Amino acid sequence: MFMHTIWRFQGVGDMDLWQLDAAQASALMAQGELRSEDLTRACLDRIAAREPVLKAWAHLDPEGALAQARVRDREPRRGPLHGIPVGIKDVIRTADLPTTFHSPVYAGHRPNEDAHAVAVLRALGAVILGKTHTLEFACGGAFPPTCNPWDPQRTPGGSSSGSGAAVADGMVPLALGTQTGGSTIRPAAFCGVYGMKPTWGRIPFDGIKSYSPALDTVGLYGRSAADLQLLLQAYALDDAGDALPRSPAQLRLGVCRTPYWAEADAQAQSAFDEALARLRQAGVVLVELPWPEGCEEINRWQDEVMQDGGRYAFWPERLNHPELLHADFQAKLDNHLGLTPERMRRATDGIARCRAAFEALLSGLDGALGLSAPGPAPIGLHTQGMATFNRMWTALQVPCIGIPALWTAQGLPMGLQLIGRRYDDAALLAVAQALGTVLDTRRTPWN
Amino acid sequence: MFMHTIWRFQGVGDMDLWQLDAAQASALMAQGELRSEDLTRACLDRIAAREPVLKAWAHLDPEGALAQARVRDREPRRGPLHGIPVGIKDVIRTADLPTTFHSPVYAGHRPNEDAHAVAVLRALGAVILGKTHTLEFACGGAFPPTCNPWDPQRTPGGSSSGSGAAVADGMVPLALGTQTGGSTIRPAAFCGVYGMKPTWGRIPFDGIKSYSPALDTVGLYGRSAADLQLLLQAYALDDAGDALPRSPAQLRLGVCRTPYWAEADAQAQSAFDEALARLRQAGVVLVELPWPEGCEEINRWQDEVMQDGGRYAFWPERLNHPELLHADFQAKLDNHLGLTPERMRRATDGIARCRAAFEALLSGLDGALGLSAPGPAPIGLHTQGMATFNRMWTALQVPCIGIPALWTAQGLPMGLQLIGRRYDDAALLAVAQALGTVLDTRRTPWN
Repeated sequence: MFMHTIWRFQGVGDMDLWQLDAAQASALMAQGELRSEDLTRACLDRIAAREPVLKAWAHLDPEGALAQARVRDREPRRGPLHGIPVGIKDVIRTADLPTTFHSPVYAGHRPNEDAHAVAVLRALGAVILGKTHTLEFACGGAFPPTCNPWDPQRTPGGSSSGSGAAVADGMVPLALGTQTGGSTIRPAAFCGVYGMKPTWGRIPFDGIKSYSPALDTVGLYGRSAADLQLLLQAYALDDAGDALPRSPAQLRLGVCRTPYWAEADAQAQSAFDEALARLRQAGVVLVELPWPEGCEEINRWQDEVMQDGGRYAFWPERLNHPELLHADFQAKLDNHLGLTPERMRRATDGIARCRAAFEALLSGLDGALGLSAPGPAPIGLHTQGMATFNRMWTALQVPCIGIPALWTAQGLPMGLQLIGRRYDDAALLAVAQALGTVLDTRRTPWN
Repeated sequence: MFMHTIWRFQGVGDMDLWQLDAAQASALMAQGELRSEDLTRACLDRIAAREPVLKAWAHLDPEGALAQARVRDREPRRGPLHGIPVGIKDVIRTADLPTTFHSPVYAGHRPNEDAHAVAVLRALGAVILGKTHTLEFACGGAFPPTCNPWDPQRTPGGSSSGSGAAVADGMVPLALGTQTGGSTIRPAAFCGVYGMKPTWGRIPFDGIKSYSPALDTVGLYGRSAADLQLLLQAYALDDAGDALPRSPAQLRLGVCRTPYWAEADAQAQSAFDEALARLRQAGVVLVELPWPEGCEEINRWQDEVMQDGGRYAFWPERLNHPELLHADFQAKLDNHLGLTPERMRRATDGIARCRAAFEALLSGLDGALGLSAPGPAPIGLHTQGMATFNRMWTALQVPCIGIPALWTAQGLPMGLQLIGRRYDDAALLAVAQALGTVLDTRRTPWN
């Protein structure tokens, strides 16, 4: 039953089906050359082989997934996602699988509705393969057991740990995550896959456990820019106006080292500069951007807004199951930072000023490049690495795309991040696609 | 079974139990002088008598409510809300009652989880009495059948129509609503009850159908400022710091006529000025506030942010049930305003500038007074009145309290609105309580 199916196909070559990215699989399905059941079975097969090491999945129902796939195979195609398996971070509600937030408060919990983000994918014919592991409530508390596909001693990053690892390891071509600090882009960096945090608010957060509402964002994972494009299209975020995909030589990009550049590893800094050199050679115009004045404490403001969310997010859990609620959440509920109305107004208004100032710097540019993380994934599963190069962008609510284009000398992934102005999601993805043709983005942990 | 119980009690006098406000009922229950079952039965009795005219309830389960009440009566008290009936707007999910959003897409829909806002109340012992009527998705489409308790020919306002009307008419002492434009404060004004829109984000929107995430706010209804205090306390928003309730003579308030003053009725304008005169007599210092420069189009910006939300909020419904989705939502999904990234950035950043500028004006003041609505409820159930004096405050994310203190010559309610700085919710409610002792806030439709 769990047999690998070798696919021989022009342009794809000899590869196991689970190695196809979503865009490749979608094209084959559109041509009637691939069935959803076969792709789903190949993913399940890959999971069966690798899950004992990787531990990416919180809940999996292989028979249920195959049943979905068989129904899709019998139907007219509903669009490009028809029949494509997707993994869902376990803070996002699903009607046909448990949703437990990696919290003992919700052990065995089964909502009877899909979150908005899942309902859209399901309506468009995607196969909801299973739920991926997450840091407890995507916030704190218990770490997930998930390992990094490039080195099982290392964290895959978090909190969308299972989604990042599963996509990187060929278990599923697409996955959903969330980001409130750095929870989507950081796992994308540590696992060497494409990740996207769209403009805040554009994919409604309905049906997802919230942490801090001005920051909470649905995140997207795929193995190529074309994969992310499938997801943007599904969420009606694919209108790029006149901004068609371009050649690198037409691009003008900012370089944004942020106030935190010194906190990056030497190897991350040098890989970043090498990537910039490569882009310059390809004709990309690069402009170093200053950080907006008076906004040097952006990451502290982000943390205050985030922790303020934590003062309110977990009340139902404390009231109903105080004995099962981790000390991390108790501390947040008790306002461990001692936040005051005055500090909250300063943080929120500071972020708003920084947002306008940063976007003004991007005027006339196609986006900005920065690091996704301070270096490669750290060793150990009781850390998820630092969100140093993510917090400010989450606070600014701007779209970010993690591109797997920076590598350590040992071959571990580090992330390059492309940042745009709010609401320019589709145009930004076209830029990422152009950059990918120049940069080293094709490595996988299985080759 | 549906017998009125007359309560004779010092300070309350002879009144039917359904006439008690939540704070009065809570005090009696704390003293062991009132049972939840009796109060719940009195509410159900009032509903049975008045619902044929008022049509405030979308879903009601009298036996289920009485069963909850009887359990509460047997338990130790969990706090001030223990045993108090609450009505829930039907866009807010409840685990034991249908949630249909007044939309045919969700006819008979039964979630198996409470929304965050409901889970907190239930955990604190409140009796979830039933679901109140709403404008479809709190957004557009089908109007609710609910009438105004002061004049059944008039709208109660919306979109939290049933919550405002039910609290005003003595059917339930407390209710939850939502506000994205003017959906909480406007019904409070038209129905003559207290309403509160807390600071955006402080009560998580989890489990409520979202419309526009930067605007969506949980709203609170009661028949006194003390009632609202019970709800703020339940949501852990009652920390006023040093701001204890004060006497009117200690208050300094701004007067904010907004750029839209000319759109108010003459009777609303004169009732507002009479209320100010009364406050001045009581020693309140009043300061006319200019509207922040460059922010004259705040309501258009709010509308753009709101309509932009509508471009994304209803995708699952369109994909799954296009034939049941009202043309209003189809138009929003089709971007009927032709919104562009550039316009969205201008609107959002303009709102952020206005927020900082307005709150700077409030520095040294205890809040600002304005109108809640341009006049009394208009005639007809195919209108919900205008949100002219609500949109800007929803956009600014500041707390607002509707005080039933303005009346037409014919005795119809119009609302006075108290507006504060973000995160000052508890202090603002203390101000409202002080103002209520001076203003004419004690009228009810049944006297």
